[in-house]
Amino acid sequence: MIPVIDALQTVLNASKRLPPVTVPLHEALGKVLAQDIRAPQPHPPYPASVKDGYALLAADGPGVYPVVAESRAGDDALGVTLSPRTVAYVTTGGPIPDGADAVVQVENTEVVNDGSDGTKLVRILVQTTEGNDIRPVGYDIEKDAIVLTSGEMLGAPEIGLLATVGVTMVKVYPTPTIGVLSTGDELVEPSTGHLGRGQIRDSNRAMLLAAAVQHQCKVMDFGIAKDDEEYQGRILDKAFASGIHILLTSGGVSMGDKDFIKPLLEKQGKLHFDKVFIKPGKPFTFAEIDLQSTDSKILAFGLPGNPASSLVCFHLFVVPAIRQLAGWTNPHHLRVQARLCQPIKTDPLRPEYHRASVIWTDNDGTGNPGFVAASTGLQVSSRLLSMRSANALLEFPATGSIVSAGTVVSAIMISDLRPMACDENHKSSDSALALPGI
Amino acid sequence: MIPVIDALQTVLNASKRLPPVTVPLHEALGKVLAQDIRAPQPHPPYPASVKDGYALLAADGPGVYPVVAESRAGDDALGVTLSPRTVAYVTTGGPIPDGADAVVQVENTEVVNDGSDGTKLVRILVQTTEGNDIRPVGYDIEKDAIVLTSGEMLGAPEIGLLATVGVTMVKVYPTPTIGVLSTGDELVEPSTGHLGRGQIRDSNRAMLLAAAVQHQCKVMDFGIAKDDEEYQGRILDKAFASGIHILLTSGGVSMGDKDFIKPLLEKQGKLHFDKVFIKPGKPFTFAEIDLQSTDSKILAFGLPGNPASSLVCFHLFVVPAIRQLAGWTNPHHLRVQARLCQPIKTDPLRPEYHRASVIWTDNDGTGNPGFVAASTGLQVSSRLLSMRSANALLEFPATGSIVSAGTVVSAIMISDLRPMACDENHKSSDSALALPGI
Ligand SMILES: [Mg+2]
Ligand SMILES: [Mg+2]
Repeated sequence: MIPVIDALQTVLNASKRLPPVTVPLHEALGKVLAQDIRAPQPHPPYPASVKDGYALLAADGPGVYPVVAESRAGDDALGVTLSPRTVAYVTTGGPIPDGADAVVQVENTEVVNDGSDGTKLVRILVQTTEGNDIRPVGYDIEKDAIVLTSGEMLGAPEIGLLATVGVTMVKVYPTPTIGVLSTGDELVEPSTGHLGRGQIRDSNRAMLLAAAVQHQCKVMDFGIAKDDEEYQGRILDKAFASGIHILLTSGGVSMGDKDFIKPLLEKQGKLHFDKVFIKPGKPFTFAEIDLQSTDSKILAFGLPGNPASSLVCFHLFVVPAIRQLAGWTNPHHLRVQARLCQPIKTDPLRPEYHRASVIWTDNDGTGNPGFVAASTGLQVSSRLLSMRSANALLEFPATGSIVSAGTVVSAIMISDLRPMACDENHKSSDSALALPGI
Repeated sequence: MIPVIDALQTVLNASKRLPPVTVPLHEALGKVLAQDIRAPQPHPPYPASVKDGYALLAADGPGVYPVVAESRAGDDALGVTLSPRTVAYVTTGGPIPDGADAVVQVENTEVVNDGSDGTKLVRILVQTTEGNDIRPVGYDIEKDAIVLTSGEMLGAPEIGLLATVGVTMVKVYPTPTIGVLSTGDELVEPSTGHLGRGQIRDSNRAMLLAAAVQHQCKVMDFGIAKDDEEYQGRILDKAFASGIHILLTSGGVSMGDKDFIKPLLEKQGKLHFDKVFIKPGKPFTFAEIDLQSTDSKILAFGLPGNPASSLVCFHLFVVPAIRQLAGWTNPHHLRVQARLCQPIKTDPLRPEYHRASVIWTDNDGTGNPGFVAASTGLQVSSRLLSMRSANALLEFPATGSIVSAGTVVSAIMISDLRPMACDENHKSSDSALALPGI
């Protein structure tokens, strides 16, 4: 049994960034950039008006002036050079005609009845200053500036920046493809209505496929494998030949005489560890499979069959691996300090990852804003309800003691922080210990 | 100009939950449940072993016993009733044979050479107690228990719970379909290499499409519309007939003589407001379009043309609308209190939403853990770089004063909290004010 920290380090050591691919902009969203992005032109590429109004010479001051040009966009007013005491109509984002050095917004002007010769006249009501409401060339982005650097995560603003500088095909790290296989003679498809004796529905596969999709992976479903060594060996061969980067199996890693996953993985590759000093998730197994044919490797995670164990191991070990393959510079989960809403009994033997709901509150019980954590209730590893609405794993060393309400503990965030009233979220009917909360 | 809070309330009042749809499990991920889910059977549906080992009568105590059955899954050992002083081999999750009342894990047993008649014998090394390592029927989920309630967000564990109770088609609130249209004579496609005079690339469309996708919406791209009233009217007609729930336009809402979006929306539906007392985003416009043909409504958001304004308004107003259409019980962003890394000058006239990067740190400058906020630099609304890596909008009332470093401010979280060293994230070369940070 190896400690959690060593298990994680072993997984990370084996998790190499995937080779970058070049994709169109809309496929780059949520991926990590694999190149620096330079602006080929300054932005704006021309002096641009910040307002709808009139471009003029600031020195001319207030007065009535003829509107000699209109410059909204494109080649409007191209070739026109404003003489003193003339103005040009400009719109937000439009180019400033040559000769002008300021803009007065339309709210500070008045249209005057047109001149007798058909020229438009406008009254400028205010004194302005040189440069007023003009964005000079390169004000937002200088020419040749690096606007994004390799390693950055591409969200919506970064996609907008790529469009701004004309990059529509972009080099990114792809997210991995994950295969998911359930094992166990007791398992039947979720669609099964009547359960025969000794049967349960396979929940892990749907759950792990969903978890992989939430981490932006492509997924392949390898179904349920009965506890037959030869059959499971064939399914693993098929999975390893399918182009996946990561294989998640669940079940088949305990001490039973039909638990074949560990020996099968050991036969096919390098078994790094087959037990972790952790609760839940002790039988968690990790191997690297060498693909001679393509000179690449597959990370094979033998997750426990109990659904809560399986999902806890997914978050603690598989998610950082996914992130590292996908090029993240920091693959680790966010850890925050949270105050317990209720006392929690810890395991005496193994470090425990207690499923909890962590929320931010204006008053964490001390009068200050802070995070508070509430248990999701009974933590037995078969009880998937302990993962329901859980957005954090509380890390408890193996002391066997009761951590009292109000204690500040370390919480690993495994899902979004959502705004939610503490009351709304924390009325758990089956709390970890039936004692009053804060 | 209406205040932000009134604008948001107006948007939320107009944002009605979409009618629920029934989808297969893998399409339900990330959606809000629109029905309560009851467990038709208890889970486990049979008394199940927690370990690999031997089922027996606890009262028999340590000793050597014949293994009279093997019960791994399914109908194994069906019809067998253990007599006292006999045991059955069981595996994790397997059914406990009738007559047994406890399990001793394999680690606490020894195989004995088989009996001369071919029966297997095992030595039980420890005294156990009734019920040891047995999950009774319904231990994880009682029969008829409500395992998920209408209004819950479906993540991976909830998908697993649905599979556990045999629900493979599930009623959820769909996420909206969003159409995106850019307007402006100055705009050219992002793929344009050479920019003519007065031209810029359209960044808003790619950015807003990406933002909508990140909020799980389906999207439709309506391209770039030139500043021609009749042409824009036709595109709007086409968009309103396309089955979208939300339309996002950008540009065309300023004071220019070719800004046609406001009058066009007013002609087609109810214009709720056309200016908000906010920086950036003053020209932000909101209308509801009645579709006589289908007796439904489209929410039309006239976003400003400046990309930072456009994205700030998207987060503040469109995201809550998306969430409400998608059935979220709380559509609001998470607000946290964060300590400023640096002084920030606020706007004297309008409440400002200052783009920032907020991170959790072990020491927020007071010696305690907490959030710290760093500006993304120059906040001019055309500068999309101000949104780069921003995960928060700091809310500043319109005082025009300088908020000093170390002040605790309200931060609206618009993107994930990520683990990141303060140093790594906050070395902004163009800070909002060139003064040292904390
Ligand atoms: Mg099994
Ligand atoms: Mg325009």
